[in-house]
Amino acid sequence: MSIEIRSLRNKVAVVGAGMIPFGEHYDKSFEDMLAEAYINCINSVDKGIDPQKEIEAVWYGTVMGPATGATVAEVTGLVGKPITRVENACATGSDAFRNACMAVAAGLYDVVLVISCEKMLDRPGGLIEAIGRAVPHYPWVYAITMPSAFALYATRHMHEFGTKIEHFAMIAVKNHKHGALNPYSHIRREIKVEDVLKSPIVSWPLHLLDCCPITDGAAAVIVCRADLAKKYTDAPVYVQGSGLATNPFLIHLRKSYVTMEPTVEAARQAYKMAKIEPKDIDFAEVHDCFTPTELISYEDLGFCKKGEGGKFIEEGIPYLGGKLPVNPSGGLKSHGHPIGATGTAQIVEIFWQLRNEAGKRQVEGAEIGLQHNIGGAGPQVSCVHILSNKLF
Amino acid sequence: MSIEIRSLRNKVAVVGAGMIPFGEHYDKSFEDMLAEAYINCINSVDKGIDPQKEIEAVWYGTVMGPATGATVAEVTGLVGKPITRVENACATGSDAFRNACMAVAAGLYDVVLVISCEKMLDRPGGLIEAIGRAVPHYPWVYAITMPSAFALYATRHMHEFGTKIEHFAMIAVKNHKHGALNPYSHIRREIKVEDVLKSPIVSWPLHLLDCCPITDGAAAVIVCRADLAKKYTDAPVYVQGSGLATNPFLIHLRKSYVTMEPTVEAARQAYKMAKIEPKDIDFAEVHDCFTPTELISYEDLGFCKKGEGGKFIEEGIPYLGGKLPVNPSGGLKSHGHPIGATGTAQIVEIFWQLRNEAGKRQVEGAEIGLQHNIGGAGPQVSCVHILSNKLF
Repeated sequence: MSIEIRSLRNKVAVVGAGMIPFGEHYDKSFEDMLAEAYINCINSVDKGIDPQKEIEAVWYGTVMGPATGATVAEVTGLVGKPITRVENACATGSDAFRNACMAVAAGLYDVVLVISCEKMLDRPGGLIEAIGRAVPHYPWVYAITMPSAFALYATRHMHEFGTKIEHFAMIAVKNHKHGALNPYSHIRREIKVEDVLKSPIVSWPLHLLDCCPITDGAAAVIVCRADLAKKYTDAPVYVQGSGLATNPFLIHLRKSYVTMEPTVEAARQAYKMAKIEPKDIDFAEVHDCFTPTELISYEDLGFCKKGEGGKFIEEGIPYLGGKLPVNPSGGLKSHGHPIGATGTAQIVEIFWQLRNEAGKRQVEGAEIGLQHNIGGAGPQVSCVHILSNKLF
Repeated sequence: MSIEIRSLRNKVAVVGAGMIPFGEHYDKSFEDMLAEAYINCINSVDKGIDPQKEIEAVWYGTVMGPATGATVAEVTGLVGKPITRVENACATGSDAFRNACMAVAAGLYDVVLVISCEKMLDRPGGLIEAIGRAVPHYPWVYAITMPSAFALYATRHMHEFGTKIEHFAMIAVKNHKHGALNPYSHIRREIKVEDVLKSPIVSWPLHLLDCCPITDGAAAVIVCRADLAKKYTDAPVYVQGSGLATNPFLIHLRKSYVTMEPTVEAARQAYKMAKIEPKDIDFAEVHDCFTPTELISYEDLGFCKKGEGGKFIEEGIPYLGGKLPVNPSGGLKSHGHPIGATGTAQIVEIFWQLRNEAGKRQVEGAEIGLQHNIGGAGPQVSCVHILSNKLF
């Protein structure tokens, strides 16, 4: 028995990735979306793959979809194979990916599939049930909802650091600008700061255009042993770091409302595993369920100092063409947020960017990408991955 | 980079285990149950453990409980640590354990916690939502429910092999007899075959007493690297095999109604990994949501030939004192079935049995135990683990 280094670094690769255009898919069933993402993923493998023969296990992410992997088995034809379902609220798609990577790193499987899908529309009962399980229940009686929980962080950040409502609006503007370039985006139109400020208040200081939409979507990736990756493609993407961390459930037990502690801790784990620092990141897909989440995450991910998130966006750093593009996909704000599928879709976007396949939204010369995905109100959990297009 | 054998065998150990007495806990919150199982688990570590310092990550299983690991973080004080939530319907507790074992086998963590909890009562809306996600939705319009889905297997087995309603009843009798000896059981009373046959029909041929109860419960285990296990106890229990497999979601797409295909496949994977055969198993905890499930599983797990499940129970083989005791705990039928917690509780029972700590229900000389846990109607998934009290 020899147990190895405590790291995924250089051990696991992504060799295929696909998603469906995000949007309001009243015309598609959960199964339709799953199938389309799966087929796109399989077809993306440069040198081809025989799924029945080569895919050994599946990690499946959904919040409100069918409870077990049986639907995935049926839709993909991978009947009989081990299918684990992971659900960690809005971080579901990332945590499914993380567990798949660990199984490959353990040497249990050579090639596995990660597939995530969420049908948000056409099922309001399920959405309320799911959000009920992701919002602290005691404070809920005081009308804490998703927007109001995040608004608490926004107002405290404004109070402590002089962050302005306009800073949040700028993030919406940026993500719509990027998303307008992305054929997979739910909302492909540019907006202006004044559009955000004129839109209705959802929970002050959050305007409607500070909030991500309710989106249907699905995404899938193929994960394999790094040493086998070249069998499938000459341009694999490597998983170099992974972190996951938690907050207390009850928001009044949290240490800070200007720092999202699980993001700081998940990022610390991921940077340590990858043996790199924030300055080494070329671009990032960051969880922007509400614009202040992205602003605070600039700081918590180490892209700038605490309190300087406003300045960071004001100076244009996270724009495409800027020093550190954030959400070239358009983020949750424009690309969309089909909760259980979001994390996996972020991995797909990073795969495309690192292979120079992102079209008009391509980050030039991108070699290292960071993925950040949170779950639960406030957040309750945060998951960070670091991927590269070269072995480190 | 060196990636190892495709097996957990001899690499992963269980060094602590605890649960709460299963039952109708109207007086306890989800958090209360979680805390009690956690404390019992921590206190069970013979040589002690400092959870804050030594537990590095958590796998959390629940179907209807809080969506993320934040509640677990808060209740246990393990705030900040990575907590993955796994949900695979009634196989949730086993699949959480499986993923925890893989992370340890990957060398990412030395010591992790698996904790599962389900509050079934006091929340009928949630239960209906959860079952809705675990029952095939198209056939559901024809009134396929959990009991009727399993009844289809029962009637077909009766038709093909002459299995009698009395055989199913005998399984209920056995499990109540065992469960009456278990202080952790929900329903601690013996019943007779005629009690089963006189109880109301739920879905023919299933009587009320063929069906497991609706139970609240929680359970937890500590998993660590096998080579570190002796730091925590002189009597570790080793994980030797793990298997997980799927069926199609739609029951009319299944190949057989007398074989539960995912159980056959999951068992094949687990036996292969452990390098043992069914004849090597000393006792088993088997998923008996309805009595025909246990009967058919005798066959599917290789304890007897296909069609001979009736004879197997008739001859007394699966009784305590018999050649291959099945469900010494009382099984889901008597011990109870808090859906997301059941699989983890089965692991706890096996831990106790393999350490000769099971009191009046002890299987004498038990060295190798098998755990079997299914999820979804029919089933959709099946998970099997093999554990031993010696390195193989």
